[in-house]
Amino acid sequence: MSPVCFDTIIRGARVVTPAGVARCEIGISGGRIAALGLSLGEATEIIEAEGLIAMPGGIDSHVHISQPSGPGIEMADDFGSATRAAVAGGNTTVLPFCLPEDGQSLRVAVAEYHAKAAGNCHCDVSFHLIVKATDPVTLGQDLPALIAAGHTSFKVFMTYQGLALSDREILEVMSVAKEQGALVMVHAENEDAIEFLRDKAEREGQTDPLFHARTRPVPVEREATHRAITLAEIADVPLTIVHVSNGESLEEIRRSRARGAKVFAETCPQYITLTAADLDRAGFEGAKYVCSPPPRAASDWEAIWSGICNGDFELFSSDHCPFRFADPAGKDAPGARTSFRNIPNGIPGVETRLPILFSEGVSKGRISLERFAAITATNHARLYGLKTKGAIMVGMDADIVLWDPEMTREIRQDDLHHGSDYTPWEGFTVTGWPVRTILRGETVMHEGDVSGVPTGAHIARSAPEVLL
Amino acid sequence: MSPVCFDTIIRGARVVTPAGVARCEIGISGGRIAALGLSLGEATEIIEAEGLIAMPGGIDSHVHISQPSGPGIEMADDFGSATRAAVAGGNTTVLPFCLPEDGQSLRVAVAEYHAKAAGNCHCDVSFHLIVKATDPVTLGQDLPALIAAGHTSFKVFMTYQGLALSDREILEVMSVAKEQGALVMVHAENEDAIEFLRDKAEREGQTDPLFHARTRPVPVEREATHRAITLAEIADVPLTIVHVSNGESLEEIRRSRARGAKVFAETCPQYITLTAADLDRAGFEGAKYVCSPPPRAASDWEAIWSGICNGDFELFSSDHCPFRFADPAGKDAPGARTSFRNIPNGIPGVETRLPILFSEGVSKGRISLERFAAITATNHARLYGLKTKGAIMVGMDADIVLWDPEMTREIRQDDLHHGSDYTPWEGFTVTGWPVRTILRGETVMHEGDVSGVPTGAHIARSAPEVLL
Amino acid sequence: MSPVCFDTIIRGARVVTPAGVARCEIGISGGRIAALGLSLGEATEIIEAEGLIAMPGGIDSHVHISQPSGPGIEMADDFGSATRAAVAGGNTTVLPFCLPEDGQSLRVAVAEYHAKAAGNCHCDVSFHLIVKATDPVTLGQDLPALIAAGHTSFKVFMTYQGLALSDREILEVMSVAKEQGALVMVHAENEDAIEFLRDKAEREGQTDPLFHARTRPVPVEREATHRAITLAEIADVPLTIVHVSNGESLEEIRRSRARGAKVFAETCPQYITLTAADLDRAGFEGAKYVCSPPPRAASDWEAIWSGICNGDFELFSSDHCPFRFADPAGKDAPGARTSFRNIPNGIPGVETRLPILFSEGVSKGRISLERFAAITATNHARLYGLKTKGAIMVGMDADIVLWDPEMTREIRQDDLHHGSDYTPWEGFTVTGWPVRTILRGETVMHEGDVSGVPTGAHIARSAPEVLL
Amino acid sequence: MSPVCFDTIIRGARVVTPAGVARCEIGISGGRIAALGLSLGEATEIIEAEGLIAMPGGIDSHVHISQPSGPGIEMADDFGSATRAAVAGGNTTVLPFCLPEDGQSLRVAVAEYHAKAAGNCHCDVSFHLIVKATDPVTLGQDLPALIAAGHTSFKVFMTYQGLALSDREILEVMSVAKEQGALVMVHAENEDAIEFLRDKAEREGQTDPLFHARTRPVPVEREATHRAITLAEIADVPLTIVHVSNGESLEEIRRSRARGAKVFAETCPQYITLTAADLDRAGFEGAKYVCSPPPRAASDWEAIWSGICNGDFELFSSDHCPFRFADPAGKDAPGARTSFRNIPNGIPGVETRLPILFSEGVSKGRISLERFAAITATNHARLYGLKTKGAIMVGMDADIVLWDPEMTREIRQDDLHHGSDYTPWEGFTVTGWPVRTILRGETVMHEGDVSGVPTGAHIARSAPEVLL
Repeated sequence: MSPVCFDTIIRGARVVTPAGVARCEIGISGGRIAALGLSLGEATEIIEAEGLIAMPGGIDSHVHISQPSGPGIEMADDFGSATRAAVAGGNTTVLPFCLPEDGQSLRVAVAEYHAKAAGNCHCDVSFHLIVKATDPVTLGQDLPALIAAGHTSFKVFMTYQGLALSDREILEVMSVAKEQGALVMVHAENEDAIEFLRDKAEREGQTDPLFHARTRPVPVEREATHRAITLAEIADVPLTIVHVSNGESLEEIRRSRARGAKVFAETCPQYITLTAADLDRAGFEGAKYVCSPPPRAASDWEAIWSGICNGDFELFSSDHCPFRFADPAGKDAPGARTSFRNIPNGIPGVETRLPILFSEGVSKGRISLERFAAITATNHARLYGLKTKGAIMVGMDADIVLWDPEMTREIRQDDLHHGSDYTPWEGFTVTGWPVRTILRGETVMHEGDVSGVPTGAHIARSAPEVLL
Repeated sequence: MSPVCFDTIIRGARVVTPAGVARCEIGISGGRIAALGLSLGEATEIIEAEGLIAMPGGIDSHVHISQPSGPGIEMADDFGSATRAAVAGGNTTVLPFCLPEDGQSLRVAVAEYHAKAAGNCHCDVSFHLIVKATDPVTLGQDLPALIAAGHTSFKVFMTYQGLALSDREILEVMSVAKEQGALVMVHAENEDAIEFLRDKAEREGQTDPLFHARTRPVPVEREATHRAITLAEIADVPLTIVHVSNGESLEEIRRSRARGAKVFAETCPQYITLTAADLDRAGFEGAKYVCSPPPRAASDWEAIWSGICNGDFELFSSDHCPFRFADPAGKDAPGARTSFRNIPNGIPGVETRLPILFSEGVSKGRISLERFAAITATNHARLYGLKTKGAIMVGMDADIVLWDPEMTREIRQDDLHHGSDYTPWEGFTVTGWPVRTILRGETVMHEGDVSGVPTGAHIARSAPEVLL
Repeated sequence: MSPVCFDTIIRGARVVTPAGVARCEIGISGGRIAALGLSLGEATEIIEAEGLIAMPGGIDSHVHISQPSGPGIEMADDFGSATRAAVAGGNTTVLPFCLPEDGQSLRVAVAEYHAKAAGNCHCDVSFHLIVKATDPVTLGQDLPALIAAGHTSFKVFMTYQGLALSDREILEVMSVAKEQGALVMVHAENEDAIEFLRDKAEREGQTDPLFHARTRPVPVEREATHRAITLAEIADVPLTIVHVSNGESLEEIRRSRARGAKVFAETCPQYITLTAADLDRAGFEGAKYVCSPPPRAASDWEAIWSGICNGDFELFSSDHCPFRFADPAGKDAPGARTSFRNIPNGIPGVETRLPILFSEGVSKGRISLERFAAITATNHARLYGLKTKGAIMVGMDADIVLWDPEMTREIRQDDLHHGSDYTPWEGFTVTGWPVRTILRGETVMHEGDVSGVPTGAHIARSAPEVLL
Repeated sequence: MSPVCFDTIIRGARVVTPAGVARCEIGISGGRIAALGLSLGEATEIIEAEGLIAMPGGIDSHVHISQPSGPGIEMADDFGSATRAAVAGGNTTVLPFCLPEDGQSLRVAVAEYHAKAAGNCHCDVSFHLIVKATDPVTLGQDLPALIAAGHTSFKVFMTYQGLALSDREILEVMSVAKEQGALVMVHAENEDAIEFLRDKAEREGQTDPLFHARTRPVPVEREATHRAITLAEIADVPLTIVHVSNGESLEEIRRSRARGAKVFAETCPQYITLTAADLDRAGFEGAKYVCSPPPRAASDWEAIWSGICNGDFELFSSDHCPFRFADPAGKDAPGARTSFRNIPNGIPGVETRLPILFSEGVSKGRISLERFAAITATNHARLYGLKTKGAIMVGMDADIVLWDPEMTREIRQDDLHHGSDYTPWEGFTVTGWPVRTILRGETVMHEGDVSGVPTGAHIARSAPEVLL
């Protein structure tokens, strides 16, 4: 062999691949993984990683950044703070959603998002498109052009006034996805039923945060899940059901797979660690837990874990959607106290997703390291067309996170990098912590310190693998 | 980097790992995969593999070799012919079952199997144990000792007189598996129901091969599947259900997983390509298709494919159980013509398993290369504790098969290496063929020629991963 | 006992009650069943019924009469012809739907229906209300008043432009039903999905009658069934799913009952005797079979029969919705030949419902006489609040039909009394025929002759029993 | 009408029939219901029943009387006391099981049971046969003869050493049932699994009554239920699953019906009012609740109620199996304190079954009077071939019970007539009480006083209706 000198060699780590955990060195050159080997020789930089676990950098395929959120409401994170939090939490790629303002064309909105992101990202980013209009320009011009430009996944909503599409519209969007090669994601909650229950609750004076959960009960999610899957079966497209919160919805997914449907499922930390009771915390603290679908019962945790363990869930994301408690239009604003309807809807989580799952999953013996890597990185890359991401494999981007599996930490807002003024997991203790994040070969986080220079790039994506 | 010279480099192939397909070189030293890299430099031997696909060598975790099969009945394969066929068909490891003779201790039987295998194997082998007796010596002495010696999986039968265990016995065997760290496999058919139906059929003169299928209908398999899973839930152990043939049994497996059971499922080529109608072929040819469970209806193919595609099946094996048609006590023997009961029960398949699945699965676009590798090799290794097998990963044994994905062949008995005098797939056309099999770094098959020297070894196995 | 002289005694019949078949006499006085006894003595009229079966008169709770059906399209039956056909077919009560014209108030529409019916009916009638608007007058004034006046059931549609309600509207209607004491019925097909498929079919030139079935596939019904049930669970009301056509929809119903939902299910003759292939008959004859949901596959018959036999279906109705083939705007009109979309949607069946079920069910041994009586009469009365109808019981209206269980007939359009110019069951042979229909003690049909004087009345209904 | 004078007229009651509740008089002559009428005239005896409800006399198709129960253990009831308790509790017929002693022929055992019953019964009786041996005489001679003599139902056990049959034996028994016209009932618990768990519990010193429940967990019942149904499907016979205790077993029944199986289901008061926690009561009181299957969790009550309400259960029986607490070999005997294994297995309930269901079901608004009558009387008669029993219908035996729906009582051992020295429902308050029991026209219980003369007879039964 001719003498090669790698840019970097990571040495001594246990390297996690879906095929198992290997003890080998990782040779990095030009930002890519150039070799894996028992002994790779020389490098400009040697990272000694004895006792650590090398994982593919986390990919969080469900985050919201700088997204229009209603009059006066400001999201707590811009691309700088969100991606700083992401790399602090062990991620190397995030996929935010691009949501047009009302009346704005999707292409213009995407351009604006690119502009907001450019130069500010600490990790790589790629955008899912939110399709909220189905006019001929959007469906016939914008989507094909944007897909061709590497935005190969859309999200449609079955809830939220102004966002929710009709079943017919969803079918039309699915048709475009089928023809142009994109994957459809769906937020499945029945808007009509929610509005019915919400109006009723408000009429009866039930306006506390807890009623956010009570007016979005499990059946509204189960129904929309069944419906979304049926629409995908009719349109003959695969489908991702995002943020599945409970066992009944998961059962709809399982049944659809048994009849041959191609359905993928995502869940989030909130559905294995929080409950609706958190929305009832004193002092309006419950508002800090308002997100949709809402946290459910502890018995649902078990159903979700069963799906994480047995492979029913391909994806574990954060649904990071950060607001501040103390903002003028934040979760504790006067309007929010008038009715749960006005509480900004979402919770921060991009920084805590991986430690929570590592601790509750790997450290507590529920899941293997390989499964952890699969549902936090590999599957996201495969499903959403990030061909150079998601696995420690020769030729891939050198996106790697080193974990100390023994480190025990208490999650504290004071230690976090995100823009929110609170974390729903304040005081939550975890074992296992990401100590170094490497993005395309460069260390961007080390022992909690995030590099000052944002080197993240936009990644144009290929067609989702399931469509090939 | 210090100049390393590998023993062998495989160059130009598309390399399949569960994390995706990489274009990289494979460096082999000392029989192991020493490195994967974009460009690995020099080697004693260079294998040019442009246009080929490098896969982990096939692991067939369900084969029967030289197994006692009843008075006068000789199995068509010994270790020499079976493993010659295996490597010809792209396999590098097979897991035969060790069945004691009546009254023989399991340890003695295992010793005899080792003796039969030693020096005769063209690929690596490791033995599952068949537990047909539950006396204190077997459970208290033999099994712990044999597990400690690397035989970390047992099979129990719910059918076949002399083999079938009672539910209580199965629970006792499961208890040993739990305490000692082994995985239980089960052949799930209800013996009592089969005997009832078989005696009835014979009384009514229904003795043709077709009645082998008619007297083992889907409900006898579904029932035993539900029962076996329940016993595993009671004993609190994971379980593999082997050779699942139909949608109703698969549904029992799915439902058990939804309630949290750790159940693994295997299927075989016969359940996606043959039907019960094959047992009704003229000229007693139907006898060539007698195996248990029997091939089902074409509608069951669809259910089985759905499970292969969506991940319900972890394992795709052959259940190679070869007999000859023309033997004195073979499938066409006078006794066999008297009643289907006397037809030696099993079909050959170790050599054709991989091409059939490659062709029907990969070439026809039903499954990806990665899924093919997973269910033909990786999962077998993970599930059964073959720590150095099943994936193209640094540190693993260099067990690799090179496929030509474009080669179209007709399966013909004349071309096969197994000991049977027929193949159930005579005339079946496949696209995709294994052209080179590499065992621990050495080519043992090239373009159909199997190396004369049997270099296969016995592999002592670790505890199945699911138990860790 | 003081000497009583009944108006009429029916003597010699086997009398069917849900508790079994009794051999007893039926004593009728003042139009009511005054006594059942082994020997009742004297009467003004004695009906000798040796060899016949006395059943409760059929109640067909799903018929359409004189209903607005689109521009230029005239329904083939008015109240005179429809009820003449009904009594000829063994019925004593029918429940047509009252559909307002666009913009017409429900109360006005009901008044018009009463006027159309008054004096013209050969059997008793009572109206279900179709709720197609959810304005405050309809929900707040009309429905409460009409319920109070005895119209204690509504139907909502999830399909048909102009009829379909949104999920929110359905929930509001259900709320009214809950508060005021009425039962909601739902036509469950997803309109959006149908329109999507229909527009696509038409774009592709697929306009033949068969595409009526192809564009309303099973999943659009299954989805709407799941959704309707979920809405009922959210509104906390019982629900009737009308005209269930297939096994997948029935499975949704079963699953909802297992989780505690109060759901009732109806099916019709077309779903056990016709298939989608009938819509493909030559010479545009397929148009004669256009109805919604469309007939399915023969394999669905089996699923529907299983539900009829095991009690999953409470109701067996006709969905009589008669049009003529040869009308100017009929099923064979030029517009209809342009696209299946324009074919008047519905088939006649009020006269043939009972003989078809008697023959296919009772005579062929699939169901008992008691189950026949339950699903053709008793359950309709109980579910829809007809307190004096549906059973041969003391105090009930003397609505009785005498069946000759041995009579074999071929169904022929020439023999029928309905207004259509064809029957979908032309040439269908049945065993078992209604030979006498008795309405409140008076014979209104005897051996095919319908009495000239229409004595049917409107029946104001009580609250459905399930609501009590 | 000729002047008829009935023996008895019941006047003023609300009369419950499956077709609804009628206000009519019941005329009784010769022990049969001779007429139902609005006004029946004269009678020798007039029973004024204003304010009361006339129901068909309760049929308890699952009771154990004078049954061999193991060495030294005496059942607490003989035919005299058991039937006295039965009529006190509103029953007119009970169906005890005839269990042969070991080695005793079934015909001899039946003869002995007849002898024990003759002249001692306060209500009518008919015997189910317990088949514990499958020798040729039992299957080929005894069963056909006994069926012909009116014993048209058998029970087989899947649990209890000495009673449990193998699957093959069950299939053979089912074959006899099919050929000879009898209905098979099954006690579904997996004996092997129970023994495994029991032996383990005892080894670990877990011998308290609670471990009776812990060693018969839900999966052992669910498994045996699935298996029993499958055997019935293979043998092509209908089947009754007795004493279903939990939702998982019920789900197996539902699924089997959906695939077309003819399966009937029974539950009992203990599964809607008691829990496993009752077995953990202090002072060895838990032994009073030992029965099989054991009471489950309160969450299972809900599943069982759902099945009672929606019709999944055809039968509500007592499984009366009475032992005494204070007997030398009773529930509190020294041996019983050594291990739960030795506690006589069963609880008394024939006297309290109907009031408990009336109160919890009818009075609390869960079920209608008609459904109460169906599952406590009518269905038992129909299913088990009691052609003259189970409904208030002309021609039927005048077996009637008059209920005071307003009477509130506390269940107290002191007030009961059974032979046990305790009731599991001590202190349980019920609303609704049977005030008069009429057997074939004669009052046998009035306001708690049971007539001194035992007039009950043995009833030879016809073939179960489902077999016709």
